[in-house]
Amino acid sequence: MNREAVLHIPLSNYAFANSECNLTIRIRAQKDNVSACTLYYGDRACNTTPVIFDEISMEIKARDEYFDYYEATFETPFQRVCYYFKLLNEGEWTYYYSERFTKELAVIYLEGNILEGRSEYYQYPYILKDEIPDVPTWFKKAVVYNIFPDSFTCGEYNPPSQPKEMVLENGKVCKSRLGGTLKGIFENLDYIQTLGFNCIYLNPIFAAGEYHKYDSIDYYHIDPCFGTNEEFKSLVEELHKREMKIIIDGVFNHCSWEFFAFEDVMEKGEESKYLNWFYELNLPLRRPLSEKEKPDYACFAYERKMPKLNTSNEEVQKYFANVGAYWIREYKLDGWRLDVANEIDRNFWRKFREAVKRENKEAILIGEVWENAESWLRGDAFDSTMNYEFRRICRDYIVGDNKNALTAAKQLEQMRLRYPTNLVNGQLNLLDSHDVPRFLSICKGDQRKWKLACILLMLLPGVPSLFYGDEQAICGIKENEYRNPMVWGQNPQLCEFVQNMIEIRKEYIEENTSYEVLWEDTDEQVLTFVREGRKGRLLVSLNIAETSRVWKREEGKMILTSSSNKELLETMGYKIYLI
Amino acid sequence: MNREAVLHIPLSNYAFANSECNLTIRIRAQKDNVSACTLYYGDRACNTTPVIFDEISMEIKARDEYFDYYEATFETPFQRVCYYFKLLNEGEWTYYYSERFTKELAVIYLEGNILEGRSEYYQYPYILKDEIPDVPTWFKKAVVYNIFPDSFTCGEYNPPSQPKEMVLENGKVCKSRLGGTLKGIFENLDYIQTLGFNCIYLNPIFAAGEYHKYDSIDYYHIDPCFGTNEEFKSLVEELHKREMKIIIDGVFNHCSWEFFAFEDVMEKGEESKYLNWFYELNLPLRRPLSEKEKPDYACFAYERKMPKLNTSNEEVQKYFANVGAYWIREYKLDGWRLDVANEIDRNFWRKFREAVKRENKEAILIGEVWENAESWLRGDAFDSTMNYEFRRICRDYIVGDNKNALTAAKQLEQMRLRYPTNLVNGQLNLLDSHDVPRFLSICKGDQRKWKLACILLMLLPGVPSLFYGDEQAICGIKENEYRNPMVWGQNPQLCEFVQNMIEIRKEYIEENTSYEVLWEDTDEQVLTFVREGRKGRLLVSLNIAETSRVWKREEGKMILTSSSNKELLETMGYKIYLI
Repeated sequence: MNREAVLHIPLSNYAFANSECNLTIRIRAQKDNVSACTLYYGDRACNTTPVIFDEISMEIKARDEYFDYYEATFETPFQRVCYYFKLLNEGEWTYYYSERFTKELAVIYLEGNILEGRSEYYQYPYILKDEIPDVPTWFKKAVVYNIFPDSFTCGEYNPPSQPKEMVLENGKVCKSRLGGTLKGIFENLDYIQTLGFNCIYLNPIFAAGEYHKYDSIDYYHIDPCFGTNEEFKSLVEELHKREMKIIIDGVFNHCSWEFFAFEDVMEKGEESKYLNWFYELNLPLRRPLSEKEKPDYACFAYERKMPKLNTSNEEVQKYFANVGAYWIREYKLDGWRLDVANEIDRNFWRKFREAVKRENKEAILIGEVWENAESWLRGDAFDSTMNYEFRRICRDYIVGDNKNALTAAKQLEQMRLRYPTNLVNGQLNLLDSHDVPRFLSICKGDQRKWKLACILLMLLPGVPSLFYGDEQAICGIKENEYRNPMVWGQNPQLCEFVQNMIEIRKEYIEENTSYEVLWEDTDEQVLTFVREGRKGRLLVSLNIAETSRVWKREEGKMILTSSSNKELLETMGYKIYLI
Repeated sequence: MNREAVLHIPLSNYAFANSECNLTIRIRAQKDNVSACTLYYGDRACNTTPVIFDEISMEIKARDEYFDYYEATFETPFQRVCYYFKLLNEGEWTYYYSERFTKELAVIYLEGNILEGRSEYYQYPYILKDEIPDVPTWFKKAVVYNIFPDSFTCGEYNPPSQPKEMVLENGKVCKSRLGGTLKGIFENLDYIQTLGFNCIYLNPIFAAGEYHKYDSIDYYHIDPCFGTNEEFKSLVEELHKREMKIIIDGVFNHCSWEFFAFEDVMEKGEESKYLNWFYELNLPLRRPLSEKEKPDYACFAYERKMPKLNTSNEEVQKYFANVGAYWIREYKLDGWRLDVANEIDRNFWRKFREAVKRENKEAILIGEVWENAESWLRGDAFDSTMNYEFRRICRDYIVGDNKNALTAAKQLEQMRLRYPTNLVNGQLNLLDSHDVPRFLSICKGDQRKWKLACILLMLLPGVPSLFYGDEQAICGIKENEYRNPMVWGQNPQLCEFVQNMIEIRKEYIEENTSYEVLWEDTDEQVLTFVREGRKGRLLVSLNIAETSRVWKREEGKMILTSSSNKELLETMGYKIYLI
């Protein structure tokens, strides 16, 4: 047995509660290296000594390049659980607990006494109802349309095109590159809703200097280039009337150098009340005149116009927790996407979360964390994070030099297992955002490839987020290009495709819909998976090769099929999309 | 290369900050399976693309049964770090990042643009000064004497022996089994301090029904069997005069069924203000008449007299955060040991920690978590936990059927690596507590064996905690036995031994003293390690065999030696303890 490959981590994605009386326990072993794995679980507070254990035969629920992942999901009659594993391979067997391989349980007999080290087994100390990892239910059903406000529109089907400058009451200047407005978004809701989206996510909309609005000057006002607070209220109300939701971008890692608190420090130096609101100050502060000059204060990246806030300061925490609660309470915002989330103190997020959830328990908090975000998804920070790993896998699979569907399938399995199941279902999957080249450009304009990725976006576990204009085949590699103005009517076929996929998603995928790779129908070119739930069985097979290819069930470059929906059936009983 | 054995977990014991500009990065590989390992680290916010990386050759800093642990500890000029590894073995090489083995870095060239996925490397997002794992400095120097108050004493050198009952103002009865008092502790401080202890930790002392006081009735008053609040204040003052510290036991998972809030629920049912203070209520509540009757409410274990508190309730959190702060503020308590810590909501601990640290940032919080406590040592709950794993390793090593010093050395390495170094140095190591059979009984009374364990207790990384009377060779397997009355003068030799060991600890071991196993001097019977720091080099070699044995440097069952302290040198330049 390759003992070095065995891995279990308590209180992690290897051991989590699904409800107060339901646990999932996983253990990893080298691929094809363990012939059977049994889970023994008992009541940590069991009145008898030794503890009485129940056993469950674990099943391989996922595989990747190197490992088999054994899993048991079971109802537990007690909330305090201790457990251990028994691993078997070709006559060799071992117990496994507390990272030790042993043939003995934790029981010692001494002078007629049974001394049990029940705490030496793995522990799930208590399934506390408030600590079951989950995501607001509505969000798991969301299909998100991500709008970069400056670029989207200034009226129905009206691409923005004029830069502008507006002056705030305090004299600060807010710039716009293209002139998009909230009113424009309002007037295009039919378009967005008709495509099937039920949630919009707006990049920052608060008063800020630059067109991208990531340098907030005033966290309580909509940027005048975009509109007014009243217009924002109307937009939210209209969305809610349509049973749609809205999320906006919160930028709290840093602010604009024109934010009142920073200006106060700039002006008053040591005397400023806001001295401790900023990071690594080297007084007196000067405003660097160019990007080459090193600022006297910590910044976002090294961006002099965006001083880093000291998010460990309780006053800062309170200020922004109030901002977070304000927009939820007063404007009925449905949630926040949180910028540069992983550079901010955890205590900041705890306060922020508490304040927001007090206003609305169902508000969603999505952190910008590109890497594995496990440490931000522990119930004290975010419900969800932006899943760039999904994009990375799609990219390597669909446009990489080493295109390999088998590798992609395995990497998707790793991704699916990296958080508790409820959280995986709430991850914000994306192909594009305001921060990356358009995926279609990565595909060198090949819409067939983009469609393959879009199918994964819409049909894999997680919440899909589509960047405005992807459905119209907008391209762009450089920042100003991928934030190009929205266009309408450029690609009705692609729009229809997106619409279809969203429809299929809504038809088949619910909270408890399973996901399973069909390994027998997956090889270097074809990735096949099944989603199965209350609404039936959806079978998806993607062929990455340029040539069509005989598939076990039907020929075609891509087959998306359901065996449960009669209307969709074509030849041989399958609905076939050739993309 | 055994790729399945390779492990790195970001933001964990595999990647942690030691200061704002110092990081430790580790990676695990199969033993003797990797010939070289290099760490590449760069600035996540680096202005050039691709990122410029520095390289460090990593070293094997620990080994255990199956693995080599490579480590690099280095000064970083930037707080935002991305990194990857390069692993080498017999001509085979691979990069490793984001759990992928690859020969390519995360750089893509597209139409003349360099698209870099720098977020695809491992990330240390930001070394935030408030999130550097650490423990209050004084605690790392503590040598703790753990007193079970009822059993200790009712006067100088005066073992307790009389049960008593006292009645509170509200009519509740508080019981005592042996009659120990705070005054008794006060009068024996010379004894404790002379042994070398500089901190006492008292099991619960608040008014409670049973003699063990884990069923608190009143969190604001000292149990009348033990004394008064004023006597407690005097005790703390006296300790502080002696430059000693004091920690007490906080029992917040459950309370007594005579606690006012529970009585209120019992009496008023649905009408009670405290309904939501308890867990899994099945109204109307009845007081179970015997232990066989199942209570209508969740309990600690199934103990009817100890109803479980609903620690997710904000009112409960506030109530106990106030308790936590009160004793620190009003009585200058130095910290809390926290009972059944792992069954309590994390939000409870966050509030508790915040309230306590606001009163005194240096107050220590020690959770009762027997298992791997990583998830409780993330800066939002405890500074330290009770390290029963230390006891387990000593037990298996010194009295187990498969005594093996090599195994013990390896398990100690695992233990030493399971948390960031600062936290390992703050773990509360123990051989005995009020909850386990006396280690000397486990040793079947063999004091030589107990001494071996005591040397490990005093000289390994971590803070030693000795249970009262261990130094007098108190035995006991059953609960009432291992909580037997203190005795004095029973074993002056053992006392002297303990005193010596504490002296040696204080002489050699400081915050940054290194710990290293000498593998060439370690085998199945002999465990040899070195602690080296500012005060010199302390070499410890323990022989578990019954027979004496030729050691490379000197013969003897146990050799404890220093090459830097001339007074201690004996034959051949070593201080030799034959135990």
